[in-house]
Amino acid sequence: MTVYEFAKGLILEAGNNVRKIMDQDLEIETKSNPNDLVTNVDKATEHYIYDNIMQTYPNHAVIGEEGHGHDLVDISGVVWVVDPIDGTLNFVHQGENFAISIGIFQDGQPYAGFVYDVMNDVLYHAKVGEGAFENETLLPSIKDTQLKQSIIAINPNWLTKPKLGEMFKPIVEDARSARAYGSAALEIIYVATGKLAAYITPRLQPWDFAGGLIILHEVNGVASNLAGATLSITSANSIVIANKQLHNELLTSYFNYHQDTITVLHERMQQK
Amino acid sequence: MTVYEFAKGLILEAGNNVRKIMDQDLEIETKSNPNDLVTNVDKATEHYIYDNIMQTYPNHAVIGEEGHGHDLVDISGVVWVVDPIDGTLNFVHQGENFAISIGIFQDGQPYAGFVYDVMNDVLYHAKVGEGAFENETLLPSIKDTQLKQSIIAINPNWLTKPKLGEMFKPIVEDARSARAYGSAALEIIYVATGKLAAYITPRLQPWDFAGGLIILHEVNGVASNLAGATLSITSANSIVIANKQLHNELLTSYFNYHQDTITVLHERMQQK
Repeated sequence: MTVYEFAKGLILEAGNNVRKIMDQDLEIETKSNPNDLVTNVDKATEHYIYDNIMQTYPNHAVIGEEGHGHDLVDISGVVWVVDPIDGTLNFVHQGENFAISIGIFQDGQPYAGFVYDVMNDVLYHAKVGEGAFENETLLPSIKDTQLKQSIIAINPNWLTKPKLGEMFKPIVEDARSARAYGSAALEIIYVATGKLAAYITPRLQPWDFAGGLIILHEVNGVASNLAGATLSITSANSIVIANKQLHNELLTSYFNYHQDTITVLHERMQQK
Repeated sequence: MTVYEFAKGLILEAGNNVRKIMDQDLEIETKSNPNDLVTNVDKATEHYIYDNIMQTYPNHAVIGEEGHGHDLVDISGVVWVVDPIDGTLNFVHQGENFAISIGIFQDGQPYAGFVYDVMNDVLYHAKVGEGAFENETLLPSIKDTQLKQSIIAINPNWLTKPKLGEMFKPIVEDARSARAYGSAALEIIYVATGKLAAYITPRLQPWDFAGGLIILHEVNGVASNLAGATLSITSANSIVIANKQLHNELLTSYFNYHQDTITVLHERMQQK
């Protein structure tokens, strides 16, 4: 069995466990702030995935939202970047619209990506160079769009911030319409499936985007930080994800005019 | 057969037709602006619903987004308020996340509401006084929440407007999180099913909310315009929809401080 096949079985099994638990009451505890809930399910799912990887591949490394590998610097060998429940607030308040996300890297290079929309039982997955799939259906390459023809995803909350709001406002105004779904992994997938033309956010952790990004690249989607640089899988990043034409339009006609704001944003991210 | 049973069959059949057409190419034409697309499907669906009502109930009246009854003033007798495709941009760009919405009124009083999530094949429906249903499952009453514990729906676009943005900004800041789904009918339903605690928007037409509103009331949800007044089914309205406690908090702690903005908003709405 390849690592890809093993990972595919593992994420489906982990999601299966989550669906079973959904009927029980959720014990909820708060993390650093009230917007950052974490549930027992979140932790249990990361442990389940971690334990299974370690049992089969004891020399692999794991970076996970719930605590594994946060101090990992050496990304040689095989590294799994895991978000056990992406969209925790949706999980808690809606009981749906959340995903398990896994990105696997070999010596820092992407190998395979998985985003499992648990409650809809739809697995998005890609092995680099072999195309991206929605369950067993090959996803076509995404089409180029202009911003004025595009539905983009951006959270309303970012529009309330003084500097960030100023930067994002003309994009929202010029887009055909805006959406916010509350799960970065699924929002990246919606770009990969053409349901959104872009997804923009000032700060994501690697586990939020690692799985989706590998899938996105297989359908010719483009991702960078707001300054146009490649995303790092060992640190937080600002994010602009889109089809190729729109990605270029967003960088050159919008973010290019806010380099000071972006520099400050990135400096603050490194200090945290 | 009661009007309720007739309407239930009719909306399911109309949705069934839409699902069949989804495989064909959509001929798209623009309405008043690029954000307001309407498709042949939209018109065909309204005609289908209108023709069927007229055949069975020739003395009923119909108000529909695509042109029927826009000058209707006399709401005595039975009036159907129909949105053939609510969430047209989702329909065009996503092929899902849209709904058919029908509200039926008798001498101005709500009689029955229907919102059909077409692609998920889920019908939300309620006959006044008999509870609301998701397919055949009775929906429980929604729970009270405080804003700081709440996920609310509001479109990012409203945050970019000078006066409206100023009014909505503290609400988005104080909420636990915000979402935007692009279909008013479904966003009202998400409040009725507890997936959202509130839905706020500065302008909806009666066909956008009539069906959802009747369902919402059956689960003890509360709706008004931003000034706290009852919604009219013969004109555009500003909208705040929430559980009882949150509705009160939004009016008294937020909108109450923006009465001038709301007055101007309502005056402009009447002029259009």
